Amino acid sequence: MSGKRFTNKQIDRLLRPKSVAVVGASDRHGALGATLLNNLVQYEFAGDIYPVNPKREEIQGLKCYASVDQLPEGIDCAVLAIPRPFVLDTVRSLAKRGCGAVVIYSAGFSEAGEEGMKEQLELGAIAAEYGMVIEGPNCLGCTNYVERVPLTFVETNMISPPKGARAVGIASQSGALAAVLATALHPRGCYVSTSVSTGNEAASGVEDYVEWLIDDENTHVITMYVESLRRPKAFIAAARRARAAGKPIIMLHPGKSNKAQESAATHTGAMAGDYALMKAKLGREGVIFADTLEELEDITEIALRCPSLPGANMAVLGESGALRGLAFDIAEDIGLDLIDLNDDNSPALRAVLPDFVPVSNPTDITAVGLSEPEIYTKVLTALLADDRVGSVVASIIQSDPITSKIKFPAIIKVLEDGTFSKPLVFAGVDEGARVPQEYIDGLRKVGIPWFPSTERAYRAIARLADLSKRDLVDNSQAPLPLPALKGVSGVVPEYKAKELLAPLGIPFPNSKFAATADDAAAAAEEIGFPVVLKAQAAALGHKSDAGGVILKLDTAEAVKAAFDKIFTNVAAYDASIQLDGVLVEKMGTMGLEMIVGAKSDPEWGPVVLAGFGGVTAEILKDVVLLTTDLSEEQVAAKLLTLKQAALLKGYRGSPELDVAALAKLIVEIGRVMEGNPSIREIDLNPVIVHPKGQGVVALDALMLVQH
Amino acid sequence: MSGKRFTNKQIDRLLRPKSVAVVGASDRHGALGATLLNNLVQYEFAGDIYPVNPKREEIQGLKCYASVDQLPEGIDCAVLAIPRPFVLDTVRSLAKRGCGAVVIYSAGFSEAGEEGMKEQLELGAIAAEYGMVIEGPNCLGCTNYVERVPLTFVETNMISPPKGARAVGIASQSGALAAVLATALHPRGCYVSTSVSTGNEAASGVEDYVEWLIDDENTHVITMYVESLRRPKAFIAAARRARAAGKPIIMLHPGKSNKAQESAATHTGAMAGDYALMKAKLGREGVIFADTLEELEDITEIALRCPSLPGANMAVLGESGALRGLAFDIAEDIGLDLIDLNDDNSPALRAVLPDFVPVSNPTDITAVGLSEPEIYTKVLTALLADDRVGSVVASIIQSDPITSKIKFPAIIKVLEDGTFSKPLVFAGVDEGARVPQEYIDGLRKVGIPWFPSTERAYRAIARLADLSKRDLVDNSQAPLPLPALKGVSGVVPEYKAKELLAPLGIPFPNSKFAATADDAAAAAEEIGFPVVLKAQAAALGHKSDAGGVILKLDTAEAVKAAFDKIFTNVAAYDASIQLDGVLVEKMGTMGLEMIVGAKSDPEWGPVVLAGFGGVTAEILKDVVLLTTDLSEEQVAAKLLTLKQAALLKGYRGSPELDVAALAKLIVEIGRVMEGNPSIREIDLNPVIVHPKGQGVVALDALMLVQH
Repeated sequence: MSGKRFTNKQIDRLLRPKSVAVVGASDRHGALGATLLNNLVQYEFAGDIYPVNPKREEIQGLKCYASVDQLPEGIDCAVLAIPRPFVLDTVRSLAKRGCGAVVIYSAGFSEAGEEGMKEQLELGAIAAEYGMVIEGPNCLGCTNYVERVPLTFVETNMISPPKGARAVGIASQSGALAAVLATALHPRGCYVSTSVSTGNEAASGVEDYVEWLIDDENTHVITMYVESLRRPKAFIAAARRARAAGKPIIMLHPGKSNKAQESAATHTGAMAGDYALMKAKLGREGVIFADTLEELEDITEIALRCPSLPGANMAVLGESGALRGLAFDIAEDIGLDLIDLNDDNSPALRAVLPDFVPVSNPTDITAVGLSEPEIYTKVLTALLADDRVGSVVASIIQSDPITSKIKFPAIIKVLEDGTFSKPLVFAGVDEGARVPQEYIDGLRKVGIPWFPSTERAYRAIARLADLSKRDLVDNSQAPLPLPALKGVSGVVPEYKAKELLAPLGIPFPNSKFAATADDAAAAAEEIGFPVVLKAQAAALGHKSDAGGVILKLDTAEAVKAAFDKIFTNVAAYDASIQLDGVLVEKMGTMGLEMIVGAKSDPEWGPVVLAGFGGVTAEILKDVVLLTTDLSEEQVAAKLLTLKQAALLKGYRGSPELDVAALAKLIVEIGRVMEGNPSIREIDLNPVIVHPKGQGVVALDALMLVQH
Repeated sequence: MSGKRFTNKQIDRLLRPKSVAVVGASDRHGALGATLLNNLVQYEFAGDIYPVNPKREEIQGLKCYASVDQLPEGIDCAVLAIPRPFVLDTVRSLAKRGCGAVVIYSAGFSEAGEEGMKEQLELGAIAAEYGMVIEGPNCLGCTNYVERVPLTFVETNMISPPKGARAVGIASQSGALAAVLATALHPRGCYVSTSVSTGNEAASGVEDYVEWLIDDENTHVITMYVESLRRPKAFIAAARRARAAGKPIIMLHPGKSNKAQESAATHTGAMAGDYALMKAKLGREGVIFADTLEELEDITEIALRCPSLPGANMAVLGESGALRGLAFDIAEDIGLDLIDLNDDNSPALRAVLPDFVPVSNPTDITAVGLSEPEIYTKVLTALLADDRVGSVVASIIQSDPITSKIKFPAIIKVLEDGTFSKPLVFAGVDEGARVPQEYIDGLRKVGIPWFPSTERAYRAIARLADLSKRDLVDNSQAPLPLPALKGVSGVVPEYKAKELLAPLGIPFPNSKFAATADDAAAAAEEIGFPVVLKAQAAALGHKSDAGGVILKLDTAEAVKAAFDKIFTNVAAYDASIQLDGVLVEKMGTMGLEMIVGAKSDPEWGPVVLAGFGGVTAEILKDVVLLTTDLSEEQVAAKLLTLKQAALLKGYRGSPELDVAALAKLIVEIGRVMEGNPSIREIDLNPVIVHPKGQGVVALDALMLVQH
């Protein structure tokens, strides 16, 4: 499923068509087919337009065709502004006539129930047979702003990017949001190259359009709204290519909350995916995530306008002490790093500040800029020239036209000669202040985004700086195939799971399976006392609840008695469970209980979850999701981001724990998952983490195998 | 310290002066004394203006006075635009001449070191002696927009509220923020009545100005920026009065982060207060907290413009399925309650929606409003009429003037006849859309705030709904004075603390103090085995670390041996510690470990902290701060908001715990704190919480007493 499903040439027939048929063309005000035709005529679409309407001779001076069967062969794209019941037959006819792409506005397919789903699958089959691109159904169409092709019934403001301007490509599963994004970005002076809304994605989805946008020379940033990626592997491949091409992908993806996931399912008929898994996987591919629509637009502007993306460690020029405190609070809240600047560590900054202004970050230059505006130029230049600084914000009180006239030119000057490629963002403090448009335009012209409020600039920069803090090097190690897995299927009981995993280096306590009481006693003698006995059967999910675990057995007699007791207990708990026997296991010293679990998603591939165990595990959800391409060092670093990481570092006199050994175990489990796609789940719970140098031990193991 | 420090008449001399002296008046462009005078002249200040400047005969046609000593007696207010060294003497002279108020712009007082602090204290002494109001030092002045009195050197846009208009009073410890707030609120069509910046608050602080604003008939909402309340009790009294007067107080107070607290200290020289304590106390007085400047302005607009404040349970009319998912994510993130509306529970809404639109919240009316705009009126009316709904948001795709013309009038219509007093907020989805100003004005005229983005509307409503969810009834119970406390001082060791607290109903295990091994054995016999022995001395902070606790003693002999062992252990641990003896205590069954601590702040009074104990207590900080006026029911409800509250409710087969008993203990501790101001701290750690009906037991107790 990875790699391109369509060639650029195929998608060109939708996004750069030379001929467009409007099926359901109309001259009735408000009809979709009328607005669409209006858009094409009004913006002087350069190719051929073929209206189709059996009841009209001509519309808008264009000759009408009575049916799609009368259209010339090989039209690039047909837009269907017709009721749902006619869609399937029409698409079939168009495919036969060599039409390369169709746009389907109608809803009522996969999101509407079984019948609709059936028809949608048929659309997909036609597309596959004929190599046809299908946008929709249940979409609002697409617009190529560069070549001025509005295949949408939305009132469109056709703003074309000037030659050489950077522009954003939009790929959205929601037509409304595709439209909203263009409406919001244009007034900010951000150009859109091409915008596609994909709806139900019967045949071509956001993955396909992103591939096209990556190769589109007019697109420099890709902004997306996604509810559910239908082809994750294809998207991962695309994201990787986008990164290599230097085109950031910025994504808004609801689904953090359960209710949002449910909502997505009813919206475009997609299955709700695992949001955390998606984020873990795409985060590794350099995708930048926005949490709100505001953030999506704000991040897009910075990515589009600034000469480069913000690195970590932001510096701020401010004009009030009050805004310093507010900056610290917000920074802590959103995980934004404010670099520590002071008189001692920043001589260059010290040199350009008045004596009574201490070097700090945010730097509070007070109202001195009103009488000495060159201070803006000097301080911002010093901050941009500082290698430790990843981005700079000028947080400015704009007040009125008189004040703006003093401050803006001194700030514009900083980037005027193009010395710096580091992002400088202008952030107003007094939203709504009367700032003449010429000053805002002046900032934009030199590559300085103008933000109406400082908190928004901080949030957008935090998201972008997050990318710079990710170590995206692929440290994948060789997968570990398990030949012994061949005969295994379904739930694998503990003793078998341990037998399978132990040879790969997963640390378990010394143990032996025993099917009789005598065998158990003998095993205990061999292992050494004290031991624990644990009931073994694939059907026995919760051993402890069934009385299937007996601890601290010190003699052979005790072991034998415990063996019998376990069989009695389990029989009383659930008579249908047939025990294989018991696992006799050495009891070790206690330590911190953690959990390590792995899961293989059929679409996304494997991921490993690690976190704190014990009774509060499910309550606090203090876990991290780890992809399988991380090195042990990267895993260890991630473990130290857990909320209770202090427990790992050694807390209140307790020793530092063996995080390295835990990281090694996690990497190992990842290699096992990569080497054996039939393993759906592995659960090691608990994993005891001992003091540094003393390793970790997985006390229990459970596997689910499905070939 | 509670109650008014100044009469309204006294503050009138600053905020409604009939005569103003400008000390340091100037005609040099950019000088503070020049801009100030300009402001007064330009806005035609109706009273007398007395410029003071020894080097000029007249300025702006006004006669100049050579020194303050030549001014007439009894001028209402003098504004000092002079260097710091001249301030103190000038204020003294003015006081002697019966001047009622001064404004001091100069910095360099308490925020600048010892010398400055000394002068500031002298300013305070003069004010106290003469009943003089002093704004500043280190402030930007004040502006009364109703009576057009601009006593500030900031370029001021003098927009006076029309007769009868609702207006906001601003009290800010930062002059920059006072100015920024007015700049930001005016373009939103929000009127400001009077704005005061208080700076270092040598004599009069935000508390005093808030008292005045409460009684000001032109002020309807009070918006504040505060870094540190210098007179908490006075502010609490004011907040209580504001609530009774129906004037909401909206506050932005940095300090959530440690760095913000440090920053406040260097900014205006105030001591950093305890942010959490401040929030717990003021939250009980109905103060509404904003986290950012954007929020402060947004909340202010809703409070000012809507006929009432939002209640809990927001309902949303939306036009896209995509925005539903985003709403759920944001709502969960910010703790906003979206009411559950569906076809079954909302017949009135069902009746006005097209068949193909299911009732839901957010309700997604799709694009149907474009052809049937009356649907906006009908759906919003149905939502406002629904008693379960606390506020309504119309989240609208505005697009362009044509689309706005369809949608806005249908929404304005909803509040046109004033049927509803519930808040309706218009929130755009596509910020920057070309919306004609007349439509925005139309919304505002009928009491509908216009928000550029939906997420901002959600955030502001969440803050306001939070107020409606607080049960602000004062359930204070009688304080519990402890006569036995008279002879006690300093750190009180466990056995004495338990002796003091047990009679008040604080549950401890059965225990007895023993000074000899024989006494200890006898005590154990009396109490019943098993017992625990605990070393007792005021100087012994950590008993366990010193080997001062021995558990599970089953016989008299074991008790005697343990007694000796404890003395040996503690002597080895720290030879300087002299033990009083040991506490012999009954060992009980274990349970969930929690902590209950109380602290009495000299300014704020007492507060009780409760939360989860054990090793992760400090790491997770899973605690709540509780004021002493809460009922047991209110305390229990707060306890159930802890992150790990699931453990209290009964988790995974473990029983529900005795939250009621824990709440009772907490209320009791609060009464003890209220009854005994000399108790600075009480720590009960751990408090064991047993299953429901079986109570709680405090295993350890520590007190700090300072008379």
